[in-house]
Amino acid sequence: MNQIPIPSLASVVAGVEQIDPRFSVEAKLLLDSLTKPIGSLGRLEAIATQMFSIFSGQIPLPLKRAVYVFAADHGVTAEGVSAYPREVTAQMVHNFVAGGAAINVLARLHDVQLTVVDVGVDAEFEPSLGLCLMKVRRGSGNMLREPALTQEDVTAAIEVGMRMAQAAKDQGQALVAVGEMGIGNTTSASAIAALLTKQQIGEVTGSGTGLDPDGRNRKLNVLRRTIRRHFGTSAETPDPLEILRCVGGLEIAAMTGFILFAAANEMAVVCDGFISTAAAAIAFAIAPEVSGYLLAGHCSEEPGHRHLLRYIGLTPILKLGMRLGEGTGAVLAMPLIESSVRLLTEMATFSSAGVSTAKE
Amino acid sequence: MNQIPIPSLASVVAGVEQIDPRFSVEAKLLLDSLTKPIGSLGRLEAIATQMFSIFSGQIPLPLKRAVYVFAADHGVTAEGVSAYPREVTAQMVHNFVAGGAAINVLARLHDVQLTVVDVGVDAEFEPSLGLCLMKVRRGSGNMLREPALTQEDVTAAIEVGMRMAQAAKDQGQALVAVGEMGIGNTTSASAIAALLTKQQIGEVTGSGTGLDPDGRNRKLNVLRRTIRRHFGTSAETPDPLEILRCVGGLEIAAMTGFILFAAANEMAVVCDGFISTAAAAIAFAIAPEVSGYLLAGHCSEEPGHRHLLRYIGLTPILKLGMRLGEGTGAVLAMPLIESSVRLLTEMATFSSAGVSTAKE
Repeated sequence: MNQIPIPSLASVVAGVEQIDPRFSVEAKLLLDSLTKPIGSLGRLEAIATQMFSIFSGQIPLPLKRAVYVFAADHGVTAEGVSAYPREVTAQMVHNFVAGGAAINVLARLHDVQLTVVDVGVDAEFEPSLGLCLMKVRRGSGNMLREPALTQEDVTAAIEVGMRMAQAAKDQGQALVAVGEMGIGNTTSASAIAALLTKQQIGEVTGSGTGLDPDGRNRKLNVLRRTIRRHFGTSAETPDPLEILRCVGGLEIAAMTGFILFAAANEMAVVCDGFISTAAAAIAFAIAPEVSGYLLAGHCSEEPGHRHLLRYIGLTPILKLGMRLGEGTGAVLAMPLIESSVRLLTEMATFSSAGVSTAKE
Repeated sequence: MNQIPIPSLASVVAGVEQIDPRFSVEAKLLLDSLTKPIGSLGRLEAIATQMFSIFSGQIPLPLKRAVYVFAADHGVTAEGVSAYPREVTAQMVHNFVAGGAAINVLARLHDVQLTVVDVGVDAEFEPSLGLCLMKVRRGSGNMLREPALTQEDVTAAIEVGMRMAQAAKDQGQALVAVGEMGIGNTTSASAIAALLTKQQIGEVTGSGTGLDPDGRNRKLNVLRRTIRRHFGTSAETPDPLEILRCVGGLEIAAMTGFILFAAANEMAVVCDGFISTAAAAIAFAIAPEVSGYLLAGHCSEEPGHRHLLRYIGLTPILKLGMRLGEGTGAVLAMPLIESSVRLLTEMATFSSAGVSTAKE
């Protein structure tokens, strides 16, 4: 798989095109001709319009659905920023392979192909169906003490993501979600959120998988010192790739590459929670046109998530108080996204059904 | 179908039992043993717990899903309270039969059996698959001038709903939704909402399918005069069956009967929008234990809906700005409801998967 040449990041970024506003107009006309009061499908009409535009009016039905879960470890776990031990990342990869995690259950139920990608877990895995072994290195460095990644790591992890998006394209997948697993990665996402959205650290930092107040204070302290170390007190937004190098994670860099490649190839990409949206925010900082291809599956309980969604300009589809990751919130939104396009394409029109329109 | 005896309303009401709190405790223990941080599935955990309790710990999987759409006309349309002409009710029934309405599209996509019930449309229909001809009368009376229904109409329409719930039970349907079609029925639902929740008419009255401000004022005026005519200015909440007689609709009475019978037979019932929730609120006023069996599919744009949801004590699953009815919001929530029970029943536990739990 690594042997096949993949385009450079620069050429992928150059290939992300603004979605064409003419398709929005066409979708609106179509929606208003259907047997329902104007606008009565609410958000579903906006989603249908976006999907119609992403696929230039030719939505490939039935939508092939897939979720890619990128897993990696984080050196910053040495600072006690997570409620769970670092080993859980690898244990959960085994759980994914065995089919017992939340994302397995949801992917099975909603007919979504699940692929797990080891881009940087601190353990070795046997080859297994649905598990892609693409490790860049065994976990990132401790961002409090050193840059989390080297420039080469960032490039390699982004390339892993692009390769997975290429695989999605090759399989004809049109509605793709990104998810992640990585003990410690809310710390990385909080740093990214603070740097991109200019919010205070406290505003974008939560309890992760379940820190107590002391643990959260420790995490806040680590984050403040980390950002000061790498970026000083400059008000300028750092270069997005530099953010990935200093405070990123391998799974976050991979998701960034995945999102950019998928957008350049006109796929609809569903973000999941705080961490995958941090990757989307990096992608958006690199290529703002990417936002037209992004849907926000849900709004997580992690406080930084809504800031990242606002930064990119995304409205979450679900708000269920979830904070699990793994792509779960994205996969849960897929039946709603598919509903919107089915309504657009399968409903009768007032004239075809012989239904009277509203009185003047 | 009308020949088979059906229990009396009183015996059905007596059969609605409070869901057993012991099952909530059991569900919580089960949820906390699964490979995810405690509580990280948010609302899905509450829904799974409710489903586990409704089915006394034995959720019948796969859940057979169905939606029953009750259609009827409303005499109050003579007062100009709707943006669409009265004929649209019958035209939409034809559209349902032909498969072109929004609810057809969603029911097909989400594997939900659709049954349309003519309980009072002002038109005659040919027999057709999926259409039950159970007309009580051709539309209700004009509530501004007379009681909308007679006591006999109310009884007969409730019985139609109970018969349909019996049919659902006979087919092993476990997750059932109620929806409706009836031009003018938001006026009826607003009157019910004002009488039960004690809100001002203006608080619980919206634009329905799309009234302009003048039209909404006319509707408000009709509602104020209607309530004064039948109930005076008494602060006491009228008897729920008396509310149905004076300001109800045949489809609303039928949904009330459906909900009570389904709850008495331990099915999970998903409410849709403003009108079906008005029926649920009447059922709740008759038998408060019914609320344990109810799920709110979504929160509609009609302003009275949230007041009715609060009155019953329901939290909507979706909030998508929809205002279409037909059961659409309820059916859209079904994949999420099923997701919650699949997670509860199919996820691995920490011990079975060998995953470490949170640090103490």
